[in-house]
Amino acid sequence: MNALNIAEYMQTLGLQAKTASAQVARAPAAIKNRALLNLAGLLRQNLGSLQAANQRDLERAAAAGLAGPLLDRLKLGAKDLETVALGCEQLAAMPDVIGEIIGMKEQPSGIRVGQMRVPIGVFGMIYESRPNVTIEAASLAIKSGNACILRGGSEAIESNKALAALVRQALEQAGLPPDAVQLVGTTDREAVGQLIAMPQYVDVIIPRGGKGLIERISRDAKVPVIKHLDGNCHVYVDDPCDIAMAVKIADNAKTQKYSPCNATEGLLVARGVAEAFLPKIAAIYAAKGVEMRCDEASAHILHAYPAIESIANIVPASEQDWYEEYLAPVISIKVVSGVEEAIAHINRYSSHHTDAILTRDHMHAQQFLREVDSASVMVNASTRFADGFEFGLGAEIGISTDKFHARGPVGIEGLTSLKYVVLGQGEVRT
Amino acid sequence: MNALNIAEYMQTLGLQAKTASAQVARAPAAIKNRALLNLAGLLRQNLGSLQAANQRDLERAAAAGLAGPLLDRLKLGAKDLETVALGCEQLAAMPDVIGEIIGMKEQPSGIRVGQMRVPIGVFGMIYESRPNVTIEAASLAIKSGNACILRGGSEAIESNKALAALVRQALEQAGLPPDAVQLVGTTDREAVGQLIAMPQYVDVIIPRGGKGLIERISRDAKVPVIKHLDGNCHVYVDDPCDIAMAVKIADNAKTQKYSPCNATEGLLVARGVAEAFLPKIAAIYAAKGVEMRCDEASAHILHAYPAIESIANIVPASEQDWYEEYLAPVISIKVVSGVEEAIAHINRYSSHHTDAILTRDHMHAQQFLREVDSASVMVNASTRFADGFEFGLGAEIGISTDKFHARGPVGIEGLTSLKYVVLGQGEVRT
Repeated sequence: MNALNIAEYMQTLGLQAKTASAQVARAPAAIKNRALLNLAGLLRQNLGSLQAANQRDLERAAAAGLAGPLLDRLKLGAKDLETVALGCEQLAAMPDVIGEIIGMKEQPSGIRVGQMRVPIGVFGMIYESRPNVTIEAASLAIKSGNACILRGGSEAIESNKALAALVRQALEQAGLPPDAVQLVGTTDREAVGQLIAMPQYVDVIIPRGGKGLIERISRDAKVPVIKHLDGNCHVYVDDPCDIAMAVKIADNAKTQKYSPCNATEGLLVARGVAEAFLPKIAAIYAAKGVEMRCDEASAHILHAYPAIESIANIVPASEQDWYEEYLAPVISIKVVSGVEEAIAHINRYSSHHTDAILTRDHMHAQQFLREVDSASVMVNASTRFADGFEFGLGAEIGISTDKFHARGPVGIEGLTSLKYVVLGQGEVRT
Repeated sequence: MNALNIAEYMQTLGLQAKTASAQVARAPAAIKNRALLNLAGLLRQNLGSLQAANQRDLERAAAAGLAGPLLDRLKLGAKDLETVALGCEQLAAMPDVIGEIIGMKEQPSGIRVGQMRVPIGVFGMIYESRPNVTIEAASLAIKSGNACILRGGSEAIESNKALAALVRQALEQAGLPPDAVQLVGTTDREAVGQLIAMPQYVDVIIPRGGKGLIERISRDAKVPVIKHLDGNCHVYVDDPCDIAMAVKIADNAKTQKYSPCNATEGLLVARGVAEAFLPKIAAIYAAKGVEMRCDEASAHILHAYPAIESIANIVPASEQDWYEEYLAPVISIKVVSGVEEAIAHINRYSSHHTDAILTRDHMHAQQFLREVDSASVMVNASTRFADGFEFGLGAEIGISTDKFHARGPVGIEGLTSLKYVVLGQGEVRT
């Protein structure tokens, strides 16, 4: 397709999505759940053909010299397919939030005013490699009564087409319009430019991918974007604090997995507990090969401590380290005077994603919760919990580092809006 | 100031607002309420000097040839000042929503997860003529724990400066940073361009003014905009319906005031009640000089009815009339087959602001509420109720015709966001 054809093609997808969105918005919960269960069944029945399509992507990617971790992300194993099928069934089992009415109160004029939760309309999703996102996004769209237009990575196009065909089938079997979930059929990048600039058809864009992609899309989009930028998360070990608990959480928050956005990148330690805490956590980090970028005070403590075997893991931190999202076995460490300095450091350097205080002090906990300006603030828990499933949202379309509309893990409610509902008995304005 | 100086000046205001926002965000409710009560007192004490400043604006405007209605909007009478002073006192008496925690639930991992309401941070407000908006915006900022940067109309600059000085004084007397509310001191239009393009300092822009202003700002802003575009509102008279009630509401919705955005611009009438309803409402509209732009079916009924004195008010509607926001003694009238056609017409032509059904039929009422895609949907009430005060929000910073973040009348909650709060007892992710 040339640019003109792509523009035309995307306009067609947009119009079809808009039309379908009105139908899926008013669909009863039972019908939407039926479509989700159909989809789960179809995924299991078509395991063979899905994996064959995925194999074609994998071979093309390998031939193009794609590296190991990227091939891993592209691979759609039987286990991955079972996970997304289960996800569809879990969504079907969840209560339907569309149409719920909250806060209905009688006003002095006599009218009763509340708010009804309704779908946003149409969302556009732009994502890379992992083809299971196609099913995650489609199932969230169905449950939330939205239509969506999906633009996956070009390397996963065969897998995504096979998955999207099953979604259409599941919708049709339930009596819903198949255009409620459309996959962009071209890998041309011009299609993304069109998708993010159709405010008449698309209400919000959700990009999932690297920071570069998200910044580019945010800059050029003509509609709101649910942005997920970086996760420079912190654990602050307060004084007083249960040291054993702090060691357990600081270990988990950094080393349970290095690549997720909710892994901790910065460790702040109150001066009063630094001598007791730092050698213990450093021994663990060193044993796991985690590089520690230390400020002078923490380096001083650790260098003086004879029990650390691998002092080679301790290197001096630069100013830039406080800003870093390593996504790797690296952590920055800084000794602070107390909760005030910890909050100030976090509000200055963190990416406002997820930050935790580990403390026994109730006042410090309250102050931290109130004053840390991040999407998720935690007391005595690992930052790794910042996740739609762990937060009880049932599913997650992304994590927002914005303050506007949705903040933190975005589940079904993030794909809805509240409209005012007024019930009167003939009232007029005087 | 030249463009370079203005850029520098706005950056300074931005940095000051950002700094003040952290302080006002954590201020206790009692301190914020103290500032509001101080402000109410200062407004009453400085009636003379405020009116003198306003007089200078009025004289300059009159000399520049400003027309009557615009002069009216610019005028700051003793009654206007008392109204905004009372508004400050009402806000002070309202419960504080900042810091409230909702939905705290224990998750399978053992962590408890809820959401805390927090200020957005800094909002920029761009508005025209009416200087009382300065106090409305300032008081909403104080109550919601946000900082704000206010850019009023150049014609009201003297009034706004005098009002803003009192706001600073009220903040200082309460121990809050005066930079929490800053007025842009230059009338240069370049300042607006700067204000809407400082994402590092300003979190959201709220424009109040004509459609042209709002479209321009939305196009150029680098931060989210709470948009209030036009209000093409509808009343749909259903079958079956209490005709006397329908006449009362259709009259009020159109004629109680012609200029507000929530005044009705289109009247849809079910065929089954058209003969009974249309002549009655037409007699009232004709007596009040309201021009009726009628489709063929409604014109046919009205022309056949001998009781209408002023048939001159009935003119044929064009396709364009269905889109029109008249803000004047004009209304479009169309006969429809029933609730389905009414909903389809509204979803096609309305501006998604406020639309009402007048009916006795429960199923029709439910369908209308569910399917009409507007910020406020009503049953048996006048569209004129779509207003922050009438909806019980206590105050209104604007009305949003967007679906994202805030929809419909925007009160204090629209100036807040929800961050996730996690309370653990040492839990880690497995």
